Amino acid sequence: MSQATKDIEALITQMAKLPGLGPRSARRAVLHLIKKRTGQMAPLADLMHQVAQSARECLNCGNIGTADICDICNDDRRATGELCVIEDVSDLWAMERGQAFSGRYHVLGGTLSALDSVGPEDLRIPQLIDRIAAEQITEVILALNATVDGQTTAHYIADQLHDAGIAVTSLAQGVPIGGELDYLDDGTIGAALKARRRF
Amino acid sequence: MSQATKDIEALITQMAKLPGLGPRSARRAVLHLIKKRTGQMAPLADLMHQVAQSARECLNCGNIGTADICDICNDDRRATGELCVIEDVSDLWAMERGQAFSGRYHVLGGTLSALDSVGPEDLRIPQLIDRIAAEQITEVILALNATVDGQTTAHYIADQLHDAGIAVTSLAQGVPIGGELDYLDDGTIGAALKARRRF
Repeated sequence: MSQATKDIEALITQMAKLPGLGPRSARRAVLHLIKKRTGQMAPLADLMHQVAQSARECLNCGNIGTADICDICNDDRRATGELCVIEDVSDLWAMERGQAFSGRYHVLGGTLSALDSVGPEDLRIPQLIDRIAAEQITEVILALNATVDGQTTAHYIADQLHDAGIAVTSLAQGVPIGGELDYLDDGTIGAALKARRRF
Repeated sequence: MSQATKDIEALITQMAKLPGLGPRSARRAVLHLIKKRTGQMAPLADLMHQVAQSARECLNCGNIGTADICDICNDDRRATGELCVIEDVSDLWAMERGQAFSGRYHVLGGTLSALDSVGPEDLRIPQLIDRIAAEQITEVILALNATVDGQTTAHYIADQLHDAGIAVTSLAQGVPIGGELDYLDDGTIGAALKARRRF
């Protein structure tokens, strides 16, 4: 077998490790790339190299950027005293796409999990406590996923901040915009009913 | 916005162009890669570069390799006189995984299609005719997909080879190994019944 076939096989194996791709879809993707090797594959490889070299975690909030301190932490207009706590950078991206929040973020890097033995020190919870004093935070918004682990983590953080004299809030739970009751799970309907508001 | 965020956005856009990936799964994949940027992202970028530079189509059969003539065409043990005609390199890979064929291949690069105005000259059909004489082919196996376009192409090639004095065969149609009748479509059951064999 020549070097190329081995390289192609290795490329397929590497691609198949990406979330959402398996061996079959990795083969399809690699074949597609090889067919467009000048126009698409080479630029993609260049970009990937560039990002692999330049990307780093913000020392302050855990966001991904090029500098030690990310753009959001550097932006003075975002020093609103509101700090949004999220599990992962993908959640930060989702919040930013929503364009509803103008404060700063704190990326935990996961959730507490007794099963996987993830404790508070494995997440960025000590850094969170430090930031609240240093940055004059007045409100911490817990935007953690509505999973068991996410909610456990939210309760733990809320406990830790009990005596800090700041507001601790969480995202509202209820019917999603455009959601149809018929397709909602029972838990969501229950939560939406419990949190009903005067019309 | 700093350069990194633009690069990451560009990388996500490029990844989302791969078959089987959309914007959401591309974001997930890129985030996964950034987290493993030393161990996984840099090697993947290197491999991609390498393949983009070295990969080329075999001038003889259309397979993908590093040299002008691919390994299968160079392998004298595969000069069995049998030539398997397939639509795409992915079909060649599928045949090779099956390990049931020991002859050589001819990749058409698609199927005839009146709607997309793909004619015989747009495929590697003239080269196929040339090869049959040059390589002393005794049997052409049409392993085209069981789609309307695939079968149209198969009929066209069979017509072209009618006077060539060689055997033209096609893959058997029937019940797949492990297949349950209850889950098969009517067309397959019909074809399997028509092609029934003495037990």
